[in-house]
Amino acid sequence: MSKLNETHDPSLSSWVTSANDGQSDFPIQNLPFASFRRAGSDESFRGGVAIGDQILDLKAAADSGVFSSQAQAELETAAKEKLNDFMAMGKDSWSRLRAALSSALRSGSAMEATLKSCLVAQADAEYGMPCVVGDYTDFYASIHHATNIGALFRPDNPLLPNYKWIPIGYHGRSSSIDVSGQTFPRPVGQTKAPDAAEPSVGPCKRMDFELEMGIFIGNGNELGETISIDNAEDHIFGMCLFNDWSARDIQAWEYQPLGPFLAKNFASTISPWIVTTEALAPYRASYSHPADDPQPLPYLESAENNAEGGVDVELDVLIQTEKMRAAGEEAVSLATSNFKYSYWTMAQMVAHHTVNGCNMQPGDLLGTGTLSGPSAEEACAMIELTTAGKNPVTLPNGEQRAFLEDGDCIVIRGFCQRNGVRIGFGEAAGTILPAKV
Amino acid sequence: MSKLNETHDPSLSSWVTSANDGQSDFPIQNLPFASFRRAGSDESFRGGVAIGDQILDLKAAADSGVFSSQAQAELETAAKEKLNDFMAMGKDSWSRLRAALSSALRSGSAMEATLKSCLVAQADAEYGMPCVVGDYTDFYASIHHATNIGALFRPDNPLLPNYKWIPIGYHGRSSSIDVSGQTFPRPVGQTKAPDAAEPSVGPCKRMDFELEMGIFIGNGNELGETISIDNAEDHIFGMCLFNDWSARDIQAWEYQPLGPFLAKNFASTISPWIVTTEALAPYRASYSHPADDPQPLPYLESAENNAEGGVDVELDVLIQTEKMRAAGEEAVSLATSNFKYSYWTMAQMVAHHTVNGCNMQPGDLLGTGTLSGPSAEEACAMIELTTAGKNPVTLPNGEQRAFLEDGDCIVIRGFCQRNGVRIGFGEAAGTILPAKV
Repeated sequence: MSKLNETHDPSLSSWVTSANDGQSDFPIQNLPFASFRRAGSDESFRGGVAIGDQILDLKAAADSGVFSSQAQAELETAAKEKLNDFMAMGKDSWSRLRAALSSALRSGSAMEATLKSCLVAQADAEYGMPCVVGDYTDFYASIHHATNIGALFRPDNPLLPNYKWIPIGYHGRSSSIDVSGQTFPRPVGQTKAPDAAEPSVGPCKRMDFELEMGIFIGNGNELGETISIDNAEDHIFGMCLFNDWSARDIQAWEYQPLGPFLAKNFASTISPWIVTTEALAPYRASYSHPADDPQPLPYLESAENNAEGGVDVELDVLIQTEKMRAAGEEAVSLATSNFKYSYWTMAQMVAHHTVNGCNMQPGDLLGTGTLSGPSAEEACAMIELTTAGKNPVTLPNGEQRAFLEDGDCIVIRGFCQRNGVRIGFGEAAGTILPAKV
Repeated sequence: MSKLNETHDPSLSSWVTSANDGQSDFPIQNLPFASFRRAGSDESFRGGVAIGDQILDLKAAADSGVFSSQAQAELETAAKEKLNDFMAMGKDSWSRLRAALSSALRSGSAMEATLKSCLVAQADAEYGMPCVVGDYTDFYASIHHATNIGALFRPDNPLLPNYKWIPIGYHGRSSSIDVSGQTFPRPVGQTKAPDAAEPSVGPCKRMDFELEMGIFIGNGNELGETISIDNAEDHIFGMCLFNDWSARDIQAWEYQPLGPFLAKNFASTISPWIVTTEALAPYRASYSHPADDPQPLPYLESAENNAEGGVDVELDVLIQTEKMRAAGEEAVSLATSNFKYSYWTMAQMVAHHTVNGCNMQPGDLLGTGTLSGPSAEEACAMIELTTAGKNPVTLPNGEQRAFLEDGDCIVIRGFCQRNGVRIGFGEAAGTILPAKV
């Protein structure tokens, strides 16, 4: 575990005391990045780092002049409205700023007095997209999801022969990705019931979520060059939570032969905070394909990927219906899972994506695909949880859901926990509004 | 034909005399936009308009101050490095600048003396991407292509049941799109021969082109809003030529169930010039589905779309092999076709893309899909021309091609011609380099 350094020390605490309670998503070992401003203000969005229930305003911190000249360039770059330029600086710069921030926010830091004035309470903030996503690719990395959903779309052929060889992925829509708090009307589109003679047009009847994680590319590669699996992690800036909203009835009618399109591109919701690859270092997990499965081809295999290609992120997806909201009831869990169940690792996704010379750019986003786990309780989409609507879920207040209803808010949460330190991803929440018809 | 105005008058000529020979792609009735600079210089790229064999440097023209105050704002916006801001201004602005440019470049214009110093010869220029493409979507609008290629990928099921109801489309990769002159190494990837037990990794063996056209979105729509078919054309800035390079062996192994991915995203080549929708007004064609086919659903149907939803663009795809280049031989035609064969129109593509509330942004690019026509000579990809390589094409110099070889340059050209006026799209040329292995 040579990738651990002083910033991961479980004994570190912060002078921002809300970071030290063992419950916060954002202890000093985390230090994730977002783009934020005071809610309702006309301030410019700028970079921020979460610490406890506060945000360190990187613009204000850069302007304060208390940082060493070594990290000042990185601080000023990370303070911009979007993180793309900071992402492009590469891992040495990311690491340099992390070390400087860890030192500055640590209990006893001489910068406490100055930086206190650079804090904004998270309760007072609103978030923008952390970066411009030039291209968004969605993978299909959970074999459990692929098998579950394959059985519904293709009962006689659930897992296609390429699945165990290729990290299957496809291109998605960047423009409709937004941060937690996103609302969108129920999509309208063409659907065709199996027994109908012709398709019809109307609001989606099988509205679904997909619990995923997002992977942000840092520095990219030139067109025609590859990123080998040995270098792939160096090009990954960090991760977020991701809800790949899906209109299943639109998907079923449109997806052949070129893949999902309008079933997906009406909205996608990410958590505002990007947890860096460096912050995830203590939470890595070993990785392997089952012994009876094909083993990864050489360009998808490395000793390091086998040893710690996975990440142990506990995931939870919750629902709060309109009725629950009116009654003041908190969101309740629909399913839990873990990113470590993924059949393919982040490094394999990046190596595969570039094996043909496809160029990645700073801020590009890779979705992992729905991260369903091996058990029925770990099915991370309604279509799996309810067997395509046949077995509705009953919520604690008695409401039933085969698919999602208008007013439903879906919340994804995730965290890593080891050696007494818990680092979290915040949440990705989104709400379905009635269709515009 | 109420959309015709003075700028379309066939009798107009320009003081740039090379525009008046009836052979140039760029007579004064065309006035397409690109981003350019002098080749090999370190100048900034800026907007330019083609006229004959020259480019009117919009930055220089704006700086000259000879334009009226009415079009000056548009001129300054179109002069930027990328056209996105000009695209966002909307059709009244596009029309205003076109009228001003038409007047300024017309024979007898009082601006001739000033604007002569704002010309750069096309022979001396290099081009950049005309705009930032936020999202790129590829459609599948030729029923002839869909049937031909469907028969090869799914012999028992060539045209899927949704084809005649839905303008099938899928998301593509923006980062690897570049302008004419693009070169790229033959992609490497996983392929699996039908009789092989396992896939293998190596250079693509079935390298192909696809003759398409590209459609650039101008002003977009907000997430959750639609663009109706009645308004769709108002949101289309213009069109270009487009080569959707395809690695057929990679595609065959990877594309199920989520669509083509690495088979496409290693490179895509567009012509540098965007011919505006307004310039295309005299070349519109009526549009209908065959009487026996399902008629378009209401959101895909309008009287105007029926009357003139099509565009009569003659298309040609040519090849120049390395051997031909060494012998000083010109490129030779592989196939010709016409955009008017498309089963779906531009307006239908835009209306369908947004029926679910997906937001379009200025500079978004829609590929039409391979524009094969009804006859065998109008098959616009090698896989169709050679029946998946079984019947190689013999070139005039005796070389044979089942698929494309290293060093092959593929050139797409296109033009509209009516009433004695010919407006062209220039060309989209790209060359395959040897694989990096």
